[in-house]
Amino acid sequence: MNIRHYTSVADLVSIANASSGFLSIVMITMGNLVLAAKFILLAVIFDALDGWVARKINREDEYGFGKNIDSLSDIISFGVAPAMLLYMSYSSFGAPYLNLAVALLIVICGLLRLSRFNVITDASDDKFIGLPIPVTALVLGSFFLSGLFQADIALVIMGIVSLLMISTINYPKFRDIKIVAVSSILVVATLLPQNFLSNISYLPAKLLFIIILLYLIVVPIIDLYTRFIRSGPNVR
Amino acid sequence: MNIRHYTSVADLVSIANASSGFLSIVMITMGNLVLAAKFILLAVIFDALDGWVARKINREDEYGFGKNIDSLSDIISFGVAPAMLLYMSYSSFGAPYLNLAVALLIVICGLLRLSRFNVITDASDDKFIGLPIPVTALVLGSFFLSGLFQADIALVIMGIVSLLMISTINYPKFRDIKIVAVSSILVVATLLPQNFLSNISYLPAKLLFIIILLYLIVVPIIDLYTRFIRSGPNVR
Repeated sequence: MNIRHYTSVADLVSIANASSGFLSIVMITMGNLVLAAKFILLAVIFDALDGWVARKINREDEYGFGKNIDSLSDIISFGVAPAMLLYMSYSSFGAPYLNLAVALLIVICGLLRLSRFNVITDASDDKFIGLPIPVTALVLGSFFLSGLFQADIALVIMGIVSLLMISTINYPKFRDIKIVAVSSILVVATLLPQNFLSNISYLPAKLLFIIILLYLIVVPIIDLYTRFIRSGPNVR
Repeated sequence: MNIRHYTSVADLVSIANASSGFLSIVMITMGNLVLAAKFILLAVIFDALDGWVARKINREDEYGFGKNIDSLSDIISFGVAPAMLLYMSYSSFGAPYLNLAVALLIVICGLLRLSRFNVITDASDDKFIGLPIPVTALVLGSFFLSGLFQADIALVIMGIVSLLMISTINYPKFRDIKIVAVSSILVVATLLPQNFLSNISYLPAKLLFIIILLYLIVVPIIDLYTRFIRSGPNVR
């Protein structure tokens, strides 16, 4: 069957997501890591938009074509691209191959996370099981552009993020319009040119990095609390 | 649900496929394009093996986890990695951004090809609809290692390959044990070290390149013949 039979305008947005991820990898190869980080964050915006467009046009996606192209784009933009950015930003002195190991871990956990997401049919609508994969892009991209970036700390954070993706910790979906609006504005603001003389230009990335870190850290603590402490030692 | 609930040993082979693709991209960034081409061909071997392993262990894959992780691995090894190899092997003199455009075309057509493959349920067992995506890896990898490589010819070939992937041309699946055995031996042989003084070391890649080119070119001609000429001008 002709491919046009399956596609919709929402798939063009998924393709824009994948293209941003691919251009990020090209920029990494060219040595322009700042632009690479911005392309990764741009991919997050397209990833958020494709679902929004699909709902606006009441896409039925009866074949699951949209779901497939969405997750294939995600592994490029939120698996391979952040892994390459981490790999290239770390000069492996002292611990050779450690950056390569964590980069591979990001890709492998991303594969497992996306595959599980695609096969879970009984997921409730208000939470994710395991950290959602665009967080790899948000945390590494904002850290890299924040002016605070340190490669060894990034290595530790990305190792933890990878394991959280394949965990069974419940992460809430934020549908609150205020939180979504503020986060979206911050992501767009990180794409603006940065002036190395002015600290203000690093502020959006700094704020975004702090918000994402809180999401990463606080949610597992609350989840563990509700699982083990409040409901007693008997694991459900 | 814990990820171990869905996984099987066949998924480890898919992960090996994705890891080879990722290591190929790392090698491209390091400037070692020969090793990058070999990693892409290694990924083809793992991709062939994961289906074989799944059949050997009688995997049921009731959730479709294996199918998902397989195609997510394919977009890394047969979409992004060949696109990056083509991009980096071409010094854009005369036609700037042409290599970037064809590289993006490979990724986008790969996304569309894999998404369609995943949603087609009524496909007959003896043919593919559109060129299968591992051919990107086989044709570019073997061309690169053949000693005949020319970047501008590769650009043309890969542009055509991309469009054939999203076409509706029927490509046969080869189940004949002799053809599969010869091709497999050739792919493995291309991974051996090459001696720049000896033409024999380029022979496996040369033979593989010629076989894949024949598959690429002859099949569409036969398909067009059976569609239009033999059955008259009325298109089915």
